[in-house]
Amino acid sequence: MIPIQSDTLLEALNWRYATKKFDPARKIPAEVWNALEQSLVLSPSSFGLQPWKFLVVQNPELRKKLSAVSWGQTQPIDCSHFVVFLGRKGLGVEDTDRYLNRSVELRGGSVESLKGYRDVIVASLEKARAGGYLDVWQSRQVYIALGEFMTAAALLGVDTCPMEGLDAGKYDEILGIDTGKWGTLCACPAGYRAADDKYATAKKVRYATSELVSYL
Amino acid sequence: MIPIQSDTLLEALNWRYATKKFDPARKIPAEVWNALEQSLVLSPSSFGLQPWKFLVVQNPELRKKLSAVSWGQTQPIDCSHFVVFLGRKGLGVEDTDRYLNRSVELRGGSVESLKGYRDVIVASLEKARAGGYLDVWQSRQVYIALGEFMTAAALLGVDTCPMEGLDAGKYDEILGIDTGKWGTLCACPAGYRAADDKYATAKKVRYATSELVSYL
Repeated sequence: MIPIQSDTLLEALNWRYATKKFDPARKIPAEVWNALEQSLVLSPSSFGLQPWKFLVVQNPELRKKLSAVSWGQTQPIDCSHFVVFLGRKGLGVEDTDRYLNRSVELRGGSVESLKGYRDVIVASLEKARAGGYLDVWQSRQVYIALGEFMTAAALLGVDTCPMEGLDAGKYDEILGIDTGKWGTLCACPAGYRAADDKYATAKKVRYATSELVSYL
Repeated sequence: MIPIQSDTLLEALNWRYATKKFDPARKIPAEVWNALEQSLVLSPSSFGLQPWKFLVVQNPELRKKLSAVSWGQTQPIDCSHFVVFLGRKGLGVEDTDRYLNRSVELRGGSVESLKGYRDVIVASLEKARAGGYLDVWQSRQVYIALGEFMTAAALLGVDTCPMEGLDAGKYDEILGIDTGKWGTLCACPAGYRAADDKYATAKKVRYATSELVSYL
């Protein structure tokens, strides 16, 4: 693995901003999109359970409907790829076994040899369910994927905009989500900034590093 | 901005894994750490409110104590930089004004001209507080920073391990956190894998891309 330079990273992170206006004419090339798709798939999650699904909405009619329930923001319509992030609800034993079966499929070994790990996962999920924070815990994992996706995009020269200003219930309805198991958490359009998006050149508003990072 | 190649990204993301054993002798060079620190600072968050703090624990005694309340995992002791992610509780009007003041400081303009934006932020925070999901919402933002940090680290050739297997209450106590305003959410050791960490070569367990990503 050949690391990139620190300056390359800093340049990309400073170049990134929450894009308000995308250039509707520019599409992400297939090779670049494939890498971004893999940044979602390869994101880490608690116990490796991957409590998420990523819907890439391409249908213009659906996009229009989603824009209407996103405070009228136009990114869902104008971006190249519009990704909706779904979080899993009520994760449990079945999901644990599915994951362990997948592990055996890819790494070999036996499900029996993973019994200790299975017990730990199931106990953690049950404890969280009893404590009422199971879905909250899992929903946070989805934001790891969001962070990974936006960082990856910036490095590939692709613009994004994290979107929480949306009616999640209406998204579920429009997208035909099985809401017993899944729920919309957020969305992220990806593509290329319009030449006249004035936010592109606005200074980033961040607190001083010394206020955000402490050394103990 | 000169983007990196898709292959460079894919190589780094496949190289990344949840490092179980760090090489205690290897430290992250200052220039690389500085870029990683900035990846935390530059992370996006809802409304730009940055509801987080990042504690980099260097003191060996503190690290030992944290390891003991992290299921005995050794990464807090052996890594180069041990980052604890704190989430803000009870975000409100004061935080909104602090943010808008910072915006005026960096971008110019006046606080008065931002009144419309202020109203939207305050109303959203109050709605979330009334709905009982304010801290949950803000905690998710912290995981964007976690995702950005791990992705940035991988690209710089730095190993990490997302850690939620820890006693957050004990972390707060050991680190002397003002728990009225802040709470430990997770941690992330960073550094370099030990040569004998057997997990480094284990195949990644991910569901098929077609199971995780759908096109509509």
